[in-house]
Amino acid sequence: MELKKDSLHRSVTGPASTSMNFLNEVANRFPDAISLAAGRPYEGFHRIEDIARHLSTYAEHLAAQGMPAEQVRRVFMQYGRTNGTIHHLIARLLATDEGIEVPADAVAVTAGAQEAMVVVLRGLCAEPGDVLLTPDPCYVGIMGAAGLLDVPVVPVPETGAGIVPAEVARVAAQVRAQGRRPRALYLVPNFANPSGVSLSTTARHELLAVAAEQDLLILEDDPYGLFPLAAEGRPSLKALDTRQQVVYIGSFAKSVFPGARVGFLVADQTVVDADGRRTLLAEELSTVKSMLTVNTSPIAQAVIGGFLVSCGCSLRAANQEKIGFYRRNLRALLSSLDREFGGIPEVTWNTPDGGFFAVLDTPVVADAALLELSAREYGVLWTPMSMFYLGTGGERQLRLSASYLQPDEIEEGVRRIARLLAERYPPAT
Amino acid sequence: MELKKDSLHRSVTGPASTSMNFLNEVANRFPDAISLAAGRPYEGFHRIEDIARHLSTYAEHLAAQGMPAEQVRRVFMQYGRTNGTIHHLIARLLATDEGIEVPADAVAVTAGAQEAMVVVLRGLCAEPGDVLLTPDPCYVGIMGAAGLLDVPVVPVPETGAGIVPAEVARVAAQVRAQGRRPRALYLVPNFANPSGVSLSTTARHELLAVAAEQDLLILEDDPYGLFPLAAEGRPSLKALDTRQQVVYIGSFAKSVFPGARVGFLVADQTVVDADGRRTLLAEELSTVKSMLTVNTSPIAQAVIGGFLVSCGCSLRAANQEKIGFYRRNLRALLSSLDREFGGIPEVTWNTPDGGFFAVLDTPVVADAALLELSAREYGVLWTPMSMFYLGTGGERQLRLSASYLQPDEIEEGVRRIARLLAERYPPAT
Repeated sequence: MELKKDSLHRSVTGPASTSMNFLNEVANRFPDAISLAAGRPYEGFHRIEDIARHLSTYAEHLAAQGMPAEQVRRVFMQYGRTNGTIHHLIARLLATDEGIEVPADAVAVTAGAQEAMVVVLRGLCAEPGDVLLTPDPCYVGIMGAAGLLDVPVVPVPETGAGIVPAEVARVAAQVRAQGRRPRALYLVPNFANPSGVSLSTTARHELLAVAAEQDLLILEDDPYGLFPLAAEGRPSLKALDTRQQVVYIGSFAKSVFPGARVGFLVADQTVVDADGRRTLLAEELSTVKSMLTVNTSPIAQAVIGGFLVSCGCSLRAANQEKIGFYRRNLRALLSSLDREFGGIPEVTWNTPDGGFFAVLDTPVVADAALLELSAREYGVLWTPMSMFYLGTGGERQLRLSASYLQPDEIEEGVRRIARLLAERYPPAT
Repeated sequence: MELKKDSLHRSVTGPASTSMNFLNEVANRFPDAISLAAGRPYEGFHRIEDIARHLSTYAEHLAAQGMPAEQVRRVFMQYGRTNGTIHHLIARLLATDEGIEVPADAVAVTAGAQEAMVVVLRGLCAEPGDVLLTPDPCYVGIMGAAGLLDVPVVPVPETGAGIVPAEVARVAAQVRAQGRRPRALYLVPNFANPSGVSLSTTARHELLAVAAEQDLLILEDDPYGLFPLAAEGRPSLKALDTRQQVVYIGSFAKSVFPGARVGFLVADQTVVDADGRRTLLAEELSTVKSMLTVNTSPIAQAVIGGFLVSCGCSLRAANQEKIGFYRRNLRALLSSLDREFGGIPEVTWNTPDGGFFAVLDTPVVADAALLELSAREYGVLWTPMSMFYLGTGGERQLRLSASYLQPDEIEEGVRRIARLLAERYPPAT
């Protein structure tokens, strides 16, 4: 049987899918190029042998709580509770590391943060007029999740200081004036992917006030919060959230490793049915989770559970080496940019105070053709910022990632980008 | 923040979710009742210690293929290929056990069979008029997946011999006459959940002819095919599929264990784009998969991968003990039914030739109230068949499962149901 591609769903045929394929293809064709494109965490802190140890630790933890051996086996081997079995450990982690106090039943374990986004969006967006607000530019994962569910996305422009709370209020009111319902604002408040920008603590308070006033949920996605340049980061929105305006989305991909594919959501909002019966939003969302993946792999949960047990539920404490690694890398990226472009007024860049990413502003169009040239002739990869915009934007910007390289590679990568720009597009004199 | 329940998506608020919650709640309130309701596989053939062995086996397998240690670590720890890394092993399994010959790239590994259903449905159903056909009664997982994506479901009545191919043709033509597009027919051809019925080999050939004629894909879900009462089962639709009409959905929950949460889909259909470029449907669906869960937990894949390596990619060979267990259980169920109800003309049941389930027809309404009474006063659980129907149907039927008990428990469970029916609803004399 032959199918016409344009008969498939637009999440398959859309431009996001095409540009993602192009980026992967370039990376595959030039495997020896230095990749300032790859935003993935560095896995070198973990060994395969550790996995079995984490599994044993979790099994011993359950046994120490008085669970009979037969039941421990069932926890590992069977289908299990839809919202997961390590929710108590995650609630403890949130209290210890983030000052977030929520009941364990408000935590749902998911197949990575990506599934958490799909679960929350699906639960919240019931009608064609239910709309998601996102910063522009924005993380591709949430755009993809919305696309999959045919949920319309309305952009809120991101500035160098993140989105502006008053602008969120304006856009939400505008959506409502169109007869549509702004259900939630998605946001990475710490060191956003792709821009690296963060929201100030003041702006966080303002944003929470706007959310309350506009009856808007905030989907706070925080994969990078553990990695500020300074000794301490800013409080998460969820930690400041006294009125249950925030659904928090977490990932263990950076704080443990991606191969577990375990993430979670925290949804402590109250849901009231027609009879006045009250439940937690996380409990209601379990229906969606069950229809997507039944439950998150108990074996994957046990790996993360064992890791959490062994570090006393503090990823901050467990990750000092990793935190140092990403700090050193981001500093290497920022100082390389300063070294190569410091004297060239046409080229500027931002200076994120943590995370994996920075953005380079150039006078040239940073498109697929330039990336191809960059990879082939200069041996360096990066990501065109334009692919993170909902409409136009970012045409002359490069996203640079420092997460998966060593400092000398970062320096060499930035040097190659400088050579590309100088040789192909010399500054007008 | 407080949310009204009826403002959430209908997959959360719908009747399927409510009845599922009721069943779970009854099971939790009466933990000592014998459960002929639980359709889960028996996990007692596996030990927690086996998990680490499967992981090592898979790591050694990769190393033996010449993969450097650093790369093996990346396979376990990092994000990975969207459609998975054990696709070659699964393709070998399908060739060995099922006589299904497909390229490995037509196989996509998913977070259980449930995610495979969501991925296929999302990719195929692009417009509001795109419709899924299902047997009625039907497995709740596919109804849930369709509900999540707002894909309309059109029932095809199931008979004691499964669905009738001519009836599929009639319903498909009717849907098309309404200006809608019948995209696929979902089907469990072997020992269906809930009814236990199977499609004859003749009907399989006829169904494939109807699918070709109606330009209809068949989603063949085959979780129970390994467990016929006879020495050999029937060929899968995919094994008979010479024209790529069938997307095959597989699960390791029964053939290995559910805790891995690994399933897969096989989609070797050709997709042609506007420029005439040809790809496999599985490759196109990887975009959907990436937006749902990025990729299936590499650790969970490694567990299944190690298991497949250690059994030479034949689950049939590896599962002789398990196959014997389920045969013995189903025989115990059928002979108990014969013993208890053989002389009572008002009570009948079907005799599936494999799998986990059988259906009991009674003169009484088998609803939530009867289940509650059955659990409380008689200590036995079962599932009302009515919850598997799209509209009305099954009101006087019980689904009985034999998968998770020992034969003496099955006998006692059926005896208790007989007592319930005799004492509460004695046959008219």
